[in-house]
Amino acid sequence: MLILATNDDGVYSPGLAILAKAMKELGDVVVVAPDKEQSAVAHSLTLHRPLLLEEVREGVYACNGTPTDCVHLAVNGLLTRRPDLIVSGINKGGNLGDDVTYSGTVSAALEAAIMGIPAIAFSMVARQDFKFGAAVEFARELAAHVLEGGMKKDTLLNVNVPNVNADEIKGVRLTRQGRRIYGGTVLERIDPRGKKYYWIGGETDNWVDDPVADHDAVRDGYISVTPLKFDMTDHGSLDSPGAWDWLAGYGNINKADSPGRAG
Amino acid sequence: MLILATNDDGVYSPGLAILAKAMKELGDVVVVAPDKEQSAVAHSLTLHRPLLLEEVREGVYACNGTPTDCVHLAVNGLLTRRPDLIVSGINKGGNLGDDVTYSGTVSAALEAAIMGIPAIAFSMVARQDFKFGAAVEFARELAAHVLEGGMKKDTLLNVNVPNVNADEIKGVRLTRQGRRIYGGTVLERIDPRGKKYYWIGGETDNWVDDPVADHDAVRDGYISVTPLKFDMTDHGSLDSPGAWDWLAGYGNINKADSPGRAG
Repeated sequence: MLILATNDDGVYSPGLAILAKAMKELGDVVVVAPDKEQSAVAHSLTLHRPLLLEEVREGVYACNGTPTDCVHLAVNGLLTRRPDLIVSGINKGGNLGDDVTYSGTVSAALEAAIMGIPAIAFSMVARQDFKFGAAVEFARELAAHVLEGGMKKDTLLNVNVPNVNADEIKGVRLTRQGRRIYGGTVLERIDPRGKKYYWIGGETDNWVDDPVADHDAVRDGYISVTPLKFDMTDHGSLDSPGAWDWLAGYGNINKADSPGRAG
Repeated sequence: MLILATNDDGVYSPGLAILAKAMKELGDVVVVAPDKEQSAVAHSLTLHRPLLLEEVREGVYACNGTPTDCVHLAVNGLLTRRPDLIVSGINKGGNLGDDVTYSGTVSAALEAAIMGIPAIAFSMVARQDFKFGAAVEFARELAAHVLEGGMKKDTLLNVNVPNVNADEIKGVRLTRQGRRIYGGTVLERIDPRGKKYYWIGGETDNWVDDPVADHDAVRDGYISVTPLKFDMTDHGSLDSPGAWDWLAGYGNINKADSPGRAG
């Protein structure tokens, strides 16, 4: 088995080293990760400049690009065979709810899923003093299961782990994406030359109460496992009768009426 | 009505100017767009440095960040009232199928949707010689409809327009995301100092045949309208009986069993 490990905290992040070490019990491991921190870069792909891969230790490569670049270059350039699994993390910070759309960690797994390779993203829900023990143990179990049984087509798994000792974990919850109560802030400041600048601030930590969501699971002491898919089509809208009738004024309307997807 | 216009091709892109002009027939328009091209930046948010907004013309601001930054700064910093609609584009290039996950154009609309603001992304499916006529005309009609009737919560619209004269457009199709047949390429080259570098190449233009998908609609001469949502949960996985039973070995399993979502 060949496992590719990456992250968005950078190639020297301890969460990546500990994840790669755990994966070595399951197969050959190659690490390709950004040469510096790349948080909140989402699913960015670098098309306008060339990229370098530097082997910083045996089987460990630093790339001057995004997490998505790392997966793309590894699979289509560096590796001589296709990985059986791609793991991303262990991220220093949670990737819950809508935050997955900003996350470099989750986007690396998303890139793998688009390529048809099973993929799992792992994140610790904390800002500091990370206790990786439970996450590493669960990562090994989950990865072993996926390597043995595969994963549903066109999906990936997003795992968030509470930052507590392994014996304090209450269990695992299979969850859906939670919903933050939106409250984005922007700081407005004046620079030394009198010019206004802005700094995008933190989000609130207020969430819609939802016992089956990722956020509530972690808050309650459970490891959260959320199956994600990259088809963002709102099939509910397509099936909503009448909602699109006004478009009939604009010539020939054909409507996608099947909730499924080709592929 | 207040309409915010943005894009990922940069504040001086003709597609943005023509879109903003059309929107002025429907309300007040403010433009906040990147100061340079920001394609394939996906839903990146800039957290590690401050951002500047420069008013390059009355009501037109250049931002040294991503399309997502532009929307975030405009709504939470610059504008004194909340926009009624956010439009993104008209992009010089299609945003079809899985490509929406890389797209700065679509991600700007996604950011608006997360904020609860109706949002539409517009893209021309071509590489050059853009014929914006049909797109502008449809953008005005669709925007007027959304301003009047609102949009389904937690969704956005992704519009792709064939690059033909307005009288050659066959009509409008309501579509789902199509699926490219994956074939990513990476060019491997040697730099002047003998060091290997990589360049992420183009994707293939081979698509899974799907008459109700965005790609096929545009290929057949139709404007494609795809309703997207930012909940990426694979609810099908959650409802799949038995698939997660193995997790029972890992303590207390709680499963999200409702296909809906709080919010």
